Amino acid sequence: MQRTVFFISDSTGITAETIGNSILTQFEGVTFDKHRLSFVDDAQKAEAAAVRIKTHYAQSGQRPIVINTMAEPALCDIVAASGALMMDVFAPFIGPLEDELGAKRSGAVNRAHGMVDYGKYEARINATNYALSHDDGIDVNYADADLVLIGVSRSGKTPTCLYMALHYGVSAANYPLTEEDLDRLELPALLRPYKSRLFGLTIEPARLAQIREQRSPGSKYATLKQCRWELDQAARLMRQAGIPSLNTTHVSIEEIASKIFSRFGIERTMF
Amino acid sequence: MQRTVFFISDSTGITAETIGNSILTQFEGVTFDKHRLSFVDDAQKAEAAAVRIKTHYAQSGQRPIVINTMAEPALCDIVAASGALMMDVFAPFIGPLEDELGAKRSGAVNRAHGMVDYGKYEARINATNYALSHDDGIDVNYADADLVLIGVSRSGKTPTCLYMALHYGVSAANYPLTEEDLDRLELPALLRPYKSRLFGLTIEPARLAQIREQRSPGSKYATLKQCRWELDQAARLMRQAGIPSLNTTHVSIEEIASKIFSRFGIERTMF
Repeated sequence: MQRTVFFISDSTGITAETIGNSILTQFEGVTFDKHRLSFVDDAQKAEAAAVRIKTHYAQSGQRPIVINTMAEPALCDIVAASGALMMDVFAPFIGPLEDELGAKRSGAVNRAHGMVDYGKYEARINATNYALSHDDGIDVNYADADLVLIGVSRSGKTPTCLYMALHYGVSAANYPLTEEDLDRLELPALLRPYKSRLFGLTIEPARLAQIREQRSPGSKYATLKQCRWELDQAARLMRQAGIPSLNTTHVSIEEIASKIFSRFGIERTMF
Repeated sequence: MQRTVFFISDSTGITAETIGNSILTQFEGVTFDKHRLSFVDDAQKAEAAAVRIKTHYAQSGQRPIVINTMAEPALCDIVAASGALMMDVFAPFIGPLEDELGAKRSGAVNRAHGMVDYGKYEARINATNYALSHDDGIDVNYADADLVLIGVSRSGKTPTCLYMALHYGVSAANYPLTEEDLDRLELPALLRPYKSRLFGLTIEPARLAQIREQRSPGSKYATLKQCRWELDQAARLMRQAGIPSLNTTHVSIEEIASKIFSRFGIERTMF
């Protein structure tokens, strides 16, 4: 079974998508054909959206689902006239929160992604620059690092560091364990002063071989044997040095970051 | 007025935070002290969470607000016993969707951020690698780029490219306009073949000077005069060449990305 879903927003649509995806994945038997309609902030754009939704309805014979974060009731009415199943993300929460806080909400929806707080912006940018300059052993002075991820090549360190920087302003460096480190089974001297901030990423050998093969087809680097040796040695090194680690094989970047934050007691919330 | 908010999840907590932040920013007069409690997936962790919430309640005398995405009713009950205002993110949507789809939801909440689809993971990683290798004019072969961002130094190109890669798998390169380009008021020859994929980022001179001053205090590069000249020339160059552009001064990274996608008709949804 396939159903069409539209994420509609008067701003970016990120909130609608995030909650929509979380809800939809709870219906395992259904495939969803998803569309994002951002910045639907006047009657003309709402009419255009309604026409698209209506057309889908007519062609498929199935009622489209709309996950909506538009604030303006008049725009919601225009889209609702398409006959779609309208699911308003904010409506259920506003009443109880207004009662609790003794305040009326302002009209501005989705300001979370539609405004800039310069302090936060700078924290994101500075952390991103930090991740870029301390990626893959480029700059190995880790004095200012909140965290240093270690692991073999292609174990997921770089995207995790960039994600933590962009969304949490966490300055995370990453250091790729070299063959020499793995041979000696010793934490490199330059990492030792920062032991309490180290975290290891591991991965299943078959998966690592697949990732490396995509990057360097036919190389020794991508063989299962080499991957298995590196991962075995890395696991031993981390165990001996008492470095916490996580197997990333079945884990998304978001979940890797959250687990690392949990481990280090970092409760910082997202930007 | 300040109120304490806990985002509680049996997984990463990203959905709870995203919708929670969107709702809370609609209450402008209130400051929120936010805490994220991730991976609350057994009775013991739920008890620990309840104790923390209760303590906050007793100390502040004000009822904490809990934005909850835990699936298991027994865990929700434990947390609710703290006396907090419980706001369940999924509850309002599940009934109508079960009716519409004629299917019961599975128990698995927050799978959106707790599972790996290898195809999507690879798209994210490949796009991130693309953004890294085509950042700041490092590799200027743009044949495989979905988009190329142009602009003066520090106008926000790099974080925007990384964000689009990590979250949408969009391969975005960025090219910093050089003094020579700006002097000649001509699109560099290497960009001309990709004109339909170019997008310009602009920024207000005072804001750019502030950002550059942070990076290179006292430099000519950071003077308002230099920033103004570069930005004037860049705007002229983009206008003459017919390149669409966006002033990023008051716009978050998420919104920049969404606006670019809107401009190019990219409806790809988030990973």
